[in-house]
Amino acid sequence: MASLRLSPSLDALVDALAQLPGFGPRSAQRAAFHLLQDPKRLERLERALAGVRENVRRCKKCRVFCESELCPICSDETRDKSLLCVVESVADELALDASLAWPGLYFVLSGRLNPIDGIGPEEIGLTALVDRIEADVAAGILREVVVATSYTPEGDATAYYLIAAVKKRYPHLRITRLARGLPSGLEIEYTDLSTIAGAVYARRDA
Amino acid sequence: MASLRLSPSLDALVDALAQLPGFGPRSAQRAAFHLLQDPKRLERLERALAGVRENVRRCKKCRVFCESELCPICSDETRDKSLLCVVESVADELALDASLAWPGLYFVLSGRLNPIDGIGPEEIGLTALVDRIEADVAAGILREVVVATSYTPEGDATAYYLIAAVKKRYPHLRITRLARGLPSGLEIEYTDLSTIAGAVYARRDA
Repeated sequence: MASLRLSPSLDALVDALAQLPGFGPRSAQRAAFHLLQDPKRLERLERALAGVRENVRRCKKCRVFCESELCPICSDETRDKSLLCVVESVADELALDASLAWPGLYFVLSGRLNPIDGIGPEEIGLTALVDRIEADVAAGILREVVVATSYTPEGDATAYYLIAAVKKRYPHLRITRLARGLPSGLEIEYTDLSTIAGAVYARRDA
Repeated sequence: MASLRLSPSLDALVDALAQLPGFGPRSAQRAAFHLLQDPKRLERLERALAGVRENVRRCKKCRVFCESELCPICSDETRDKSLLCVVESVADELALDASLAWPGLYFVLSGRLNPIDGIGPEEIGLTALVDRIEADVAAGILREVVVATSYTPEGDATAYYLIAAVKKRYPHLRITRLARGLPSGLEIEYTDLSTIAGAVYARRDA
């Protein structure tokens, strides 16, 4: 990429932007020039970052990003506290909740199991999840845990591990995974074979 | 896009990131979550923005971004001061200079003429360019001005206007545009017709 080492500060900004998902060195340079073209843009992003650094924390119960001790979901009295959905990321929690299909609460893992990269059960927050389940079971409010990981190798491994760990401790607790099947709005012709196979195995009475 | 209004600060960051070229609301949310996952990432970008705000300014002569009064190009004594290349943006100056084909100096316009959006000669810095040329002509050091705008409607309009303005003031100054023709490494078969036509009209003796 064209760089004249015009300014170490500018290079540092390009490098920092290039770390963002979706950006490479070239688009990061374009974004940096865009920001430099108007001081207001630069200040707006700088203020937004400072605001996030100062105000955003993790919800004490579900670990989603929020600005108070409990997030709007965990403090919503109309939610069904007997249902707990375990997700891999904040983005997954937002997507599930936007589907309006889940009336219960959530728990956000820190990613998914990936032993090759040294991401084990502790790294994704298994202890915190077990503590949460234990407290809810002790309080007699938990009926079901949905392990909402994706049907990818890592998502499968994470689900199997969590399901085994929870079943061992609480054999009478209902524990489920999201259904596997055809996505809405996609022709079978254009659906990948692994998805079709999953939908065949999980076929249900009409 | 899935949003729970979890945090006004987080929303403000997503909105600010979504303004960057190459980002939309969805990728901006992904980038914001990526930054939030590690406080170090957030701080790094914040520090980089502050560094740019504090240190980066425009070169007094060519208006490229730099950290001192004159940029490394303008203060480079080995450059041919009789050749001035007028470009639309800092990115264009970097690209031209990375080609290693231009031994002279530069002048960066603030974009290109776009009367529909109210971008006239003043807005793109014509006065500053004329001042620059006047000073160089008075000092007897200027031989040629290349108007290096692209062969797009706005680039063409900008070039015609600048060429006319400079010719009127300095009829004896050589003023050129970059050659129009086939790009390197692209088969004629896959080249757009307007580019092929331009290359035919500008054909040269072999």
